[in-house]
This record gives sequence, C-alpha cells and structure tokens, in this order.
Amino acid sequence: MMKLLILGCHSATPRENKHTTSQLLDINGSMFLIDCGEGTQMQLRKSKVKFSQIKNIFISHLHGDHFYGLIGLISTFRLLGRESPLNVYGPKGIKEIITLQLKFSKSWTNYPLNFHELSSTQSECIFEEDGIKVETIPLDHRIYTNGFLFTSESEKRKINTAVTDKYNLSPFHFSQLQKGMSINLEDGSIIKNKFLTLLPDPPLKYAYCSDTLYHEPLIEKIRKVDFLYHESTFLEIHSELALKTKHSTALQAAKIAKKANVKKLMLGHFSNRYSDKQVFIDEAKIEFNNVILAEDLKTFMI
Amino acid sequence: MMKLLILGCHSATPRENKHTTSQLLDINGSMFLIDCGEGTQMQLRKSKVKFSQIKNIFISHLHGDHFYGLIGLISTFRLLGRESPLNVYGPKGIKEIITLQLKFSKSWTNYPLNFHELSSTQSECIFEEDGIKVETIPLDHRIYTNGFLFTSESEKRKINTAVTDKYNLSPFHFSQLQKGMSINLEDGSIIKNKFLTLLPDPPLKYAYCSDTLYHEPLIEKIRKVDFLYHESTFLEIHSELALKTKHSTALQAAKIAKKANVKKLMLGHFSNRYSDKQVFIDEAKIEFNNVILAEDLKTFMI
Repeated sequence: MMKLLILGCHSATPRENKHTTSQLLDINGSMFLIDCGEGTQMQLRKSKVKFSQIKNIFISHLHGDHFYGLIGLISTFRLLGRESPLNVYGPKGIKEIITLQLKFSKSWTNYPLNFHELSSTQSECIFEEDGIKVETIPLDHRIYTNGFLFTSESEKRKINTAVTDKYNLSPFHFSQLQKGMSINLEDGSIIKNKFLTLLPDPPLKYAYCSDTLYHEPLIEKIRKVDFLYHESTFLEIHSELALKTKHSTALQAAKIAKKANVKKLMLGHFSNRYSDKQVFIDEAKIEFNNVILAEDLKTFMI
Repeated sequence: MMKLLILGCHSATPRENKHTTSQLLDINGSMFLIDCGEGTQMQLRKSKVKFSQIKNIFISHLHGDHFYGLIGLISTFRLLGRESPLNVYGPKGIKEIITLQLKFSKSWTNYPLNFHELSSTQSECIFEEDGIKVETIPLDHRIYTNGFLFTSESEKRKINTAVTDKYNLSPFHFSQLQKGMSINLEDGSIIKNKFLTLLPDPPLKYAYCSDTLYHEPLIEKIRKVDFLYHESTFLEIHSELALKTKHSTALQAAKIAKKANVKKLMLGHFSNRYSDKQVFIDEAKIEFNNVILAEDLKTFMI
C-alpha cells in the first residue's frame, strides 16, 4: 500500500494556502517525508500526522522552497522529546547547514540525527528495508538535484479465491497462506501453499521528480512506474522561462510520462503566476491522458 | 506614531494559528521587523504588509522560534526583485548561517544585504536615523540575547491652538509651524514660531524584551517606556521550569514593569501548554495593572 499526502505543491515562496514543496509517502505504515519547505511542520500538524512516525527524510536539493522547513522540524522533534533516530538524505552541504544552526542555538538533538549526504550524478540505492527501496533519480536543475524512486515489494502471496472458496478456512489460515506457509486442516490433511495462492502483486513504484529541466535520461529510471510526480512549474507560454530557470512545463512533464509509459502522472510545483490550474491539465493531456494535479493537504492512493 | 503588529507571539514550535515570535513595528511609516520565526513571511502576507517597506530586521537571539523564518524572507525578497538594501541586526553567527545557505543554493541576493553582528554584553546604540533610535537591551537567556529599545523623537512642534485659533491660518502655515518656522501673514506681519507652538511631544519608547530570565539589570534601560513587551513563557506554577530554561513568568514580567514604572505591559511568548491565556493577565495584575496580551495578527497603537 502506498498513500501520498501532498503537504505543499507550490514553487518559490510560501503563501497562505500555497505551501512550498513537501510530501509524505506512507508505504505500509512507514512514513517517508520528501522535501520540506518552510512551514512543513505546520502542514503536518494540520494533517494530524504523528511526528514520531517520520523516520526518514529525503531532500531533493538545497533551494529554499524544498528544505527551509527542515531545521524547524528537526528542532521540533527535539522539543517533542524524540528519542528514535532520524535519517536525512540530501545533497552534500545539508549536514553543515543544519549543524551550524544547532551549534549557534546550543540546541543539539537528543536523538541520533544521521545525515546521508549525496553527491553522485549516477542513480544509486540509498535506502533498503522491509521490502522498501529508495533510489535516486539524477535530475537537471540549476544546482545538484535528485528525484527519488520508491519501490515497495509486496511480500504477501495473493489468495487464489477460486480455490480457497472450496474450503472452510479461518482468518488464521489466510494469514499463513499470505506468508507462503502451507496449512493444516482440521481433518489432519495438509494443503500446500502453492495450490491455494498466486504470486505476490508486482512491486508498487512511486517516482518523485522535482525540480528539473525536461530531461530524457530520467525516462529509463522511471519506466512503467505506477505513479509519477513530475514538476510543471510553467506552461508552454513560458517555455523560455522554464529553460532559463531549468524547470519543466506541463507539456514536457506529460512527454516524459508518455515516453516512460507510466500509469499515472501528477503535476505540481506550480508557479504562483497561474491562478487557474486546470490549464496545466489541458496542456498535459495533449501528450498524456491520465494526469492529475497535486493539491495541498490532499491524499492520493498510489 | 508607533504601531505594533504582532505576527507571532508563541514559543518553541509553530502550530496552526500559533505562530512563533515576530513583530512589525511601524514608526511614522518606517517598518522594523523584530525577530522572524518560521512562517513569518506568510504572516506578513496575511497582514497585507508590503514586503519592500521592511528595511531593517532585528534578531534577538539564535533560537529557532526567533529566526528560522529569516532565510526564507531574505530569499523571497530576492524573488520579488528587491533592489534596496536590507539591514539585519543580530547575534554574531547570523551572517555565517544565512550566507552558508545562500552559497549552497547558489542564490545570492541581488540587493545589498548588510549584516550588523552584535556581541556586546553592554547596551549599545545600533541604529539612528530620522529621529528614530534603536538600542540593545542585554538579556539573560540560555544563549546570547538582546532585547531592543526603540525611541522615536518627535521633531514636530505642537500647535498651541489656544493662540492659533485667533488667526486665520492655512494648512501650509500649520505645516511651517510644526517644522519650527515662523510665518508670514497676508498683511505682511511675521509671527515668531515660539508664540504659536509648544515643545514637541516627549519621545515615544517601545521596549522589546524576549527571551529572558527575570533580570533586574534591564529595568534601568526601560524605565518609564510607553510600552513594554516582556516575555512570559510560563505562569508561576511553572516557575522552576522558567528558571531552568531561563524564561520568565507572567508575575515576573509584571514585577519588571512595575519596578521600571512603564506605562503599559504586553505579555507574550506563551508556552503551548496553556490553553487559557486570561490566567496570564490575572497573575500579572497582582503586580501591575495596565497589562494586555499579545495576539497573532493583531495591531496595537503605542
């Protein structure tokens, strides 16, 4: 199960009801925070998220609208009495920025704060635990930037109901079957797992790509993902500005989605110059039909 | 004229409708920002403040709830195309923190950003312009902290209406009189300024004291000010916690106000543990009667 909560999906500067980038990805109950613009902790409170559930934070790049809220969140964890470790994955420099501020405020965290600094321009696997894997997606922006590919391998075998319906099985039996175990019936007979189950679901994949210029090399990395978030700061009428600032247009995001043959595309990182967001959908649909808009404080099933 | 807009008056961590410390002081149209907790730029937008009007920012100390919003505001000024200089007054270290973040984001400001770093433990005058003076008020907190005393000298002489009512004077005449000039009447006669005016109003004084332990040495500096903001993070029931964290209680703030013989006291920097703020007033009134509560997004005339 993957559930994506958009905490902020606007670019540049935060405004009332227009928060800068942050997302909370829930994979089978494990919470991954992706980027952390100013005010993210307030958005988390509004969403009634339990702060202690966040164990891993991924920062794409060191532009303010993607990480100025990180130091505040780290400080708040301390004030809330956090004891469990926090892992921060982000570009080289992030450790220096955070620790400098902790130094001057004499507010060292009383929980382990582990930095995993990134500097490779090649995709690398940076997290692997409980069937969940996170790999970087190198992007092309004004400064060193990574997107992130989240993969969740399903470990549970699927129940073959066409067969199990013939038996009178208990919930305990079903739980055993999902784990790959064979079961003992009351009459003493044993039925092997393979006769009652099917292979687990294919892995679920979520790709987060922000911020980036139209960048075809990333296509290979995100091919056929279930859900792609791709920035679309601009519309085509501002394509020159997109090029200059190394951002994408809605049409370009859709081209990437189409070429990578993804199942669904979400657009976000909108410039504040556009009041009507429907135009982003209209423009993207020229290339790719299954497209939706990110929206602050809204949750999406992947 | 002094007008104080409270942008945030809560301590520790920002929550919805409970913003951390920031205030905007308007002295005859000049805007002074005092402290800048996370999300201050969003509070400024809600208050419809014109960002370009802010030319001077005063940071009391380097705890997050007083300055984590500064880097975001500085970045937003750049994105808004600011050209006029910005002056930041704050503890030694503030320049390193801000410039490190600008370095990693490759986002140097295209307006002059001047840091005035403070390290003296004695009161000093750090700003003087157009009859407005700002002096530091050394406080006693866990890290190096200053309050700020704002003094506005009125340069305009007061019209002595008991006398001017005898003449048929124009608005232009009144303007000349306020500037200290003598006036020419239509019949050719001259009336000297001193016969028509009184001395200017005494200077207006606003003292900002946050964060601090109960600290009697500051009394001399704030004697008889028109308006004192003094932190009261806690109530007396938590006086041990106040001592341990080097904060004040409402009663202690009132004692300072009484001993300094100030005209009015405002309490703020409330801990999130108290839902009913009226108790702060009740406790303070034991020592000092003219006391009010700070409130986010509310404006007060000084």
